Amino acid sequence: MDQSDLHAPKWQFSERARKLTSSAIREILKVTERPEVISFAGGLPAPVTFPAERMREASDRILRDTPGAALQYSATEGYLPLREWVATRYSVNGAQIRPSQVLITTGSQQALDLLGKVLICPESPVLVETPTYLGALQSFSMYEPRYVQVPTDDNGLIPAALTPELTAGARVLYAQPNFQNPTGRRLPIERRRALAAFAQGAPFPVIEDDPYGALDYAGEPLPTMLSMAPDHIVHLGSFSKVLAPGLRVGYIIAPEELHFKLVQAKQATDLHTPSFTQRIVHEVVKDGFLDTHVPTIRTLYRDQCTAMLAALERYMPEGVSWNKPEGGMFIWVTLPAHIDSMKLLDEAVAQNVAFVPGAPFFASDAQHHTLRLSFVTVPPAKIDEGIARLGALLRARV
Amino acid sequence: MDQSDLHAPKWQFSERARKLTSSAIREILKVTERPEVISFAGGLPAPVTFPAERMREASDRILRDTPGAALQYSATEGYLPLREWVATRYSVNGAQIRPSQVLITTGSQQALDLLGKVLICPESPVLVETPTYLGALQSFSMYEPRYVQVPTDDNGLIPAALTPELTAGARVLYAQPNFQNPTGRRLPIERRRALAAFAQGAPFPVIEDDPYGALDYAGEPLPTMLSMAPDHIVHLGSFSKVLAPGLRVGYIIAPEELHFKLVQAKQATDLHTPSFTQRIVHEVVKDGFLDTHVPTIRTLYRDQCTAMLAALERYMPEGVSWNKPEGGMFIWVTLPAHIDSMKLLDEAVAQNVAFVPGAPFFASDAQHHTLRLSFVTVPPAKIDEGIARLGALLRARV
Repeated sequence: MDQSDLHAPKWQFSERARKLTSSAIREILKVTERPEVISFAGGLPAPVTFPAERMREASDRILRDTPGAALQYSATEGYLPLREWVATRYSVNGAQIRPSQVLITTGSQQALDLLGKVLICPESPVLVETPTYLGALQSFSMYEPRYVQVPTDDNGLIPAALTPELTAGARVLYAQPNFQNPTGRRLPIERRRALAAFAQGAPFPVIEDDPYGALDYAGEPLPTMLSMAPDHIVHLGSFSKVLAPGLRVGYIIAPEELHFKLVQAKQATDLHTPSFTQRIVHEVVKDGFLDTHVPTIRTLYRDQCTAMLAALERYMPEGVSWNKPEGGMFIWVTLPAHIDSMKLLDEAVAQNVAFVPGAPFFASDAQHHTLRLSFVTVPPAKIDEGIARLGALLRARV
Repeated sequence: MDQSDLHAPKWQFSERARKLTSSAIREILKVTERPEVISFAGGLPAPVTFPAERMREASDRILRDTPGAALQYSATEGYLPLREWVATRYSVNGAQIRPSQVLITTGSQQALDLLGKVLICPESPVLVETPTYLGALQSFSMYEPRYVQVPTDDNGLIPAALTPELTAGARVLYAQPNFQNPTGRRLPIERRRALAAFAQGAPFPVIEDDPYGALDYAGEPLPTMLSMAPDHIVHLGSFSKVLAPGLRVGYIIAPEELHFKLVQAKQATDLHTPSFTQRIVHEVVKDGFLDTHVPTIRTLYRDQCTAMLAALERYMPEGVSWNKPEGGMFIWVTLPAHIDSMKLLDEAVAQNVAFVPGAPFFASDAQHHTLRLSFVTVPPAKIDEGIARLGALLRARV
């Protein structure tokens, strides 16, 4: 026993903290920080899409004109003009969203934490897609739920599978209808209608987590479930993928009763999202900037997606399959059943290429022969090179 | 039953959410937003102390020189140069603080939430001062502890009261040694030594929450307990009172084992504190700015504290007593035992003056004849006028 052992305190952690493990993505990202690694692992937006100059002008204006308010404590609900902007933006297709339904959060991740805090008791059944967003599993798991996986196919969640048996006692259903992380799948319009109708009869909220909705390559977004059932859908949005993630500004649109509980929980959690970053976001978006900016992101990601799909076609051996996303940041790859993508990752990193294994995205019964590729951070020439390396590894294994 | 009732969803909230009530301070602050109200309620730093011009220059430099990094996702632990700055600043009086012990948080309130998440199980005993910081009670209560109040006197927490009976099974002890919120009390050096020694033998961490430490009017800060027992004290710091609260940047200094759990919990909670605000804080403080800036805040608050003490002397009737703070932002007032400060507040607001009743600061057995006055947001002439109104109300009641 050395000196440090003698002094290290032996403190008891909470039950939830004892169950905590670090995210697989996080550990992988550490390895792939080496510049020689071509990483398809990170879900990091391309920095070239950040409107830095506009933000610089906005910051400058805000700190010159309203420094007292921008640097002071502010309301837990968020900056009212930004809440109004969000409400207006979502008041489409006949839906009327009120600013009193909008809570500004410190990124979408905080929205997930607050929803877990307010809705989940230990052993509460929580319905999730198969697979689902890893970050949601991490947030919800702090509140010790029992996950129930909802069956999916190539079009995403299957509403007909939401039987009374499957959903009995559920506290919440969590779904990403647009270009889901990790599969890149988009829920078709008929399924949105069916899920919205289900939400109207369900004794628990359906969460529509929508960070990627604006990134549809054809510029033809499908209507949100929020617009179909505004009193029964809890909608999560974010400025991370359309402006910049480093500001950590997202929002929850929820019926007032839930909104009020979320506000109380947020007050206990971080008082409010930084006044300054909320004002920067509002200053940048208030005059319609996203209408011209988002199409440039779409075009960039669509071209990189096309490059990755072409490279997969070129280099992948028979027995490997993948989807063709209509938007977003990810492609979901299915390997022959005998290949464990977690083991493949070790070899891949040795060849300076990285991805995220699929297993951590499953709440249970993980499909180990799946993996997620992100095409947004890597330029097309590097995409081809990285997929070629991955293809060579797989050809040696099938 | 009207239309909206028919459509309002009936969702089940978690046990912790059902217990949630809005903070008394929060409700009062809403009332006191009217400009004619002289409010001693808010703990809002005086905006004149915000170094807005420096922040504007810093923001400008950051978004010109490193926009990609400042606007991108970043490490959960926080911006490394800022963590290094914090570690260096606390490596005094023989203590060596490592950057690996420092986690940057979205304000100190998030530090409290993360500590609750990682340390508290339902019914865990949690030791708090009598009275204690309301925001800590709000954060910890989300994890459903059983509070145990530690006796205090005019010098704060009494270390000799920490008997094995009182502390049995405790998961954490929470204390604010410097100019405590709400009492303004400072823990003397002998008690700090005793509490640090207690921490070294305790099977749970002692939290030293220190948002006001830099604001001692004589410029003669007492050593932190962290410096006395760096492996056994968890120290919380904040830039809210020395720079600006609207950026929401604070930090936790903790032994690595706890630090690692806190990082995992923070990842699930909001991924990381905004990259941009962390870099602004670092850019502003890195060259010693606080050494010249903080004394100007101290002088301002000391003068306003002096004005309030003089006004109390002038206008308060016999039977009302208060302490004389050596720093910080608050004065704690004790009324004759038959006066309930919550009821007094209604009358006071009608006379356009506000304060915070003392009761919400007690975990149990509230002393209803106490109240908290903040002197930092109101200029001296208004302080005199506001205390005069309050004195008139009390003279009619004693």
